[in-house]
Amino acid sequence: MTNTASRAWSALTAHHQKLGKKHLRDLFADDPGRAASLSLSFEDILYDFSKQRLTPETFDLLFKLAETSSLAAGIQRMFNGERINVSEGRSVLHVALRHSSAPFPSAQMDVMPDVLSTRKRMAEFAEHLRAGQGQGHHGAAIRDVVNIGIGGSDLGPKMVNQALRAIAHPALGVHYVSNLDGAQMAPLLQTLDPRSTLFIVVSKTFTTQETMLNATTARNWLTANLGDEVNLEHHFATVSSKPERAAAFGISPERVFPIWDWVGGRYSLWSAVGLSLMIAIGPHAFDELLRGAERMDEHFRTAPLARNLPVVMGLIGIWNTNFLGAASNAVLPYNESLKYLPSFLQQLEMESNGKSVGVTGGPVGSETCPIVWGELGNNGQHAFFQLLHQGGRLIPCDFIASARSDYPLPGHQEALLSNCFAQSSALAFGKSEDEVRESLEKELVPAQQIAELLPHRVFAGNQPSSTLLLKSLTPATLGALVALYEHKVFVQGAIWGINSFDQWGVELGKAVASRILPAFADPSLAAAFDSSTQALLAYCRKQS
Amino acid sequence: MTNTASRAWSALTAHHQKLGKKHLRDLFADDPGRAASLSLSFEDILYDFSKQRLTPETFDLLFKLAETSSLAAGIQRMFNGERINVSEGRSVLHVALRHSSAPFPSAQMDVMPDVLSTRKRMAEFAEHLRAGQGQGHHGAAIRDVVNIGIGGSDLGPKMVNQALRAIAHPALGVHYVSNLDGAQMAPLLQTLDPRSTLFIVVSKTFTTQETMLNATTARNWLTANLGDEVNLEHHFATVSSKPERAAAFGISPERVFPIWDWVGGRYSLWSAVGLSLMIAIGPHAFDELLRGAERMDEHFRTAPLARNLPVVMGLIGIWNTNFLGAASNAVLPYNESLKYLPSFLQQLEMESNGKSVGVTGGPVGSETCPIVWGELGNNGQHAFFQLLHQGGRLIPCDFIASARSDYPLPGHQEALLSNCFAQSSALAFGKSEDEVRESLEKELVPAQQIAELLPHRVFAGNQPSSTLLLKSLTPATLGALVALYEHKVFVQGAIWGINSFDQWGVELGKAVASRILPAFADPSLAAAFDSSTQALLAYCRKQS
Repeated sequence: MTNTASRAWSALTAHHQKLGKKHLRDLFADDPGRAASLSLSFEDILYDFSKQRLTPETFDLLFKLAETSSLAAGIQRMFNGERINVSEGRSVLHVALRHSSAPFPSAQMDVMPDVLSTRKRMAEFAEHLRAGQGQGHHGAAIRDVVNIGIGGSDLGPKMVNQALRAIAHPALGVHYVSNLDGAQMAPLLQTLDPRSTLFIVVSKTFTTQETMLNATTARNWLTANLGDEVNLEHHFATVSSKPERAAAFGISPERVFPIWDWVGGRYSLWSAVGLSLMIAIGPHAFDELLRGAERMDEHFRTAPLARNLPVVMGLIGIWNTNFLGAASNAVLPYNESLKYLPSFLQQLEMESNGKSVGVTGGPVGSETCPIVWGELGNNGQHAFFQLLHQGGRLIPCDFIASARSDYPLPGHQEALLSNCFAQSSALAFGKSEDEVRESLEKELVPAQQIAELLPHRVFAGNQPSSTLLLKSLTPATLGALVALYEHKVFVQGAIWGINSFDQWGVELGKAVASRILPAFADPSLAAAFDSSTQALLAYCRKQS
Repeated sequence: MTNTASRAWSALTAHHQKLGKKHLRDLFADDPGRAASLSLSFEDILYDFSKQRLTPETFDLLFKLAETSSLAAGIQRMFNGERINVSEGRSVLHVALRHSSAPFPSAQMDVMPDVLSTRKRMAEFAEHLRAGQGQGHHGAAIRDVVNIGIGGSDLGPKMVNQALRAIAHPALGVHYVSNLDGAQMAPLLQTLDPRSTLFIVVSKTFTTQETMLNATTARNWLTANLGDEVNLEHHFATVSSKPERAAAFGISPERVFPIWDWVGGRYSLWSAVGLSLMIAIGPHAFDELLRGAERMDEHFRTAPLARNLPVVMGLIGIWNTNFLGAASNAVLPYNESLKYLPSFLQQLEMESNGKSVGVTGGPVGSETCPIVWGELGNNGQHAFFQLLHQGGRLIPCDFIASARSDYPLPGHQEALLSNCFAQSSALAFGKSEDEVRESLEKELVPAQQIAELLPHRVFAGNQPSSTLLLKSLTPATLGALVALYEHKVFVQGAIWGINSFDQWGVELGKAVASRILPAFADPSLAAAFDSSTQALLAYCRKQS
């Protein structure tokens, strides 16, 4: 039975009918203690979900749905190392990557020796580089590190690196290259000195097309600039589970950092995939990041559902997606350093739960992951917020801000936060026809003009949002924040009955691309394709 | 009468019923000439919409809807300079900004003398700086230009600057600051030399909160570093319609470039708002950008509906949004240089048509602008494409690529393009159960495992997309591309009966923010707000 056929689901449907379009204005008016009762905190994170369109009764029903979905048991199964990624026959143990004590998950299947020894090797390697002792060409110190990876081997480390740039090593440049397009790699190379550049190739299989092509281009660039005497081993390290392929590429065995099949790319920034990040922020800050995530893991594993941040966050998303019918979820950071967070969450959520087939192979029977999108909130105000306010679409928003700034400038931080709080408030409460008329009359606008302007200046409100307010953007708080979203995804996967840890949907495009590629060199191959692909290939041929 | 009540609308509804979920596989099989008949080209742009879920009959009905909506007359009214932005009582003349001959729009109301003289002043200013003759402190040459603006005063110039970075001045740094968050401005200032830095403050009203605060911070930084002897006039220019306010700030009248009320922020990159961009790419390339846009304007104004790219593109969006029920539209550039295009289009489309009230004040009666979102396509493949392929949501996609690369590296460009074409093909055609079974059997996967894997490896397909394939990313082609999207927005606004040129929805948040800000300094003011805002303010107070 899918969860949509459960009594808990029907009860939520009925509850939604009853609650109807009850306005947030009324929900707040009905309950002066609403903000207090509909918010939670965990260490330095305040999670205020009082501006979601729900009531305490909604939560009672959502918790029942969680029970129907055996959420609590599912959580234990993950932490116990069971093979919950069934379609790939794997355990799901990214939580081990931030765990601090052995054995884990169990004495029978302890992954911690590998995890801890890798973490130690990473720290040694990072410290060495950070101390200026990393040697490039003819003993030149390494000054630039280029992470070559895509998807999970790029977004997570890059996002956190940007978030923590205030504490990054001042003299080491750390760069991230992902795109097949030479327009990312080529201009970067122009700014680098090959003698002092280290490339870290991040690919579990060491076969990812984008990553291997960029790595090959990097190798060619080193050889072209440094001549045949170049010792490539000084300029490469890798994170991969295929050391033999790395060796064939020319990477020294001491510079191969392992990654395991029980960690998926989008959950891997805590592993050696975070090596470039660790080089930037240092092993100590990296460790704090892990500790923050580990404490969130422990909270997720042990806190009762009603006080459990990832559970509450996940269930709110279920409510918005499956009962209110929201097709998307906007992520709006009010902190420039979190500028990659929307892209990171896009991957985390959409690749994990963007599926319509359940773990047992049947259709899920309900909508699943919404479209996750967003931009820096303050910039968004001057771009797409028009639609959030008056577009008539239901778009739940996550506002994310830190109370303290890493870059305090007089007047900026309070103005920024006042905008953050104002937007969620305006979205929730709107401005009624009466209020608009009153304010236009106060401005002495003539009656005729008021009549014309009125409908354009009404704000329906009732647009739901949550606010995640952090004390400041420390490694530990960021670690907890990312783990919070990871576990939110787990909660939603459990409710939808999805395996959140495979990604079969990425395979077809790769296979088709490998069939199309030879047709660039050999036009006779194009005939095998549909007429559109043929026409696109023909157009390219004309230009070359 | 709204357009939804028209016969044309009903006919489309009936047509949609009849077409049902007819699969793109069948549409292509039915018509071998489909790619040729469902694509258009304009100069160096090929627009292939054959992978949209429609037939030539769909277009016949959409063109009738366009007639019902008086689209052709609406286009002429814009080009004639009529006050089609009625809620603000203004003409809409961004097309004048790329027009090359006077009078325009008419002899009675010729804006071209202002436009041309401003363009000339911009070119002189830009050439001066590009030749190293711009003087900063004590005669130091200006080496860095910082554009301070937000929304339309940021996204357009920044997007085009990134797109054309291959031809940017090699020795002048051009930077864009928008966010209120000091975490954008402060780290940038650390990299700049105040003696050789010019700030260009872009704000029509010269009161935009973010822009004025960043400008003030810039002024403080100059004074703090260069002392009281600093001549601020050497370090500032502005684009504004309020010269008196600029003067009060300390900007010399010769360095005030005008902007007019008949151009909206999101349509303004062609005006003096593009000054920083012009400094980066030079007046000649800027002029080519304008010429490309002007030719698209002429095409839009004169081409018959069926051969008119913006009309066809706009109507496809109407079909997807209003008849197929798509809630969003993904923009997927396969060109690293177009990385800001999704954000730019997000503003252009969502701020223009994210409205539910029609131009005459009544409800529109249908869905309007979808959520526009996206990322660089190749990166997206490793992030959120899982959901596009198997998430079960209808998400029309715009694939955008250029045949030639500005940064050719061996092997990269063809691999990139093969991915672009493969993704749209895989989304359209999918992979059926039979095909999956066949390929798994070929791989000799055991029957039991095939049964388990099968449902996870099926791709439903029928996900619609268009491909915009450019010959290369020249200024002229980029100008045409942006104008194409601008006019697409116009077409959709006309169908929905929306005024695409106002943005009342941004006002409420600003007003609420200005009420919240003083509560940071004076906690007693917090009591006026809802309990959530109060709690958020209290949390911040605890941290400070």
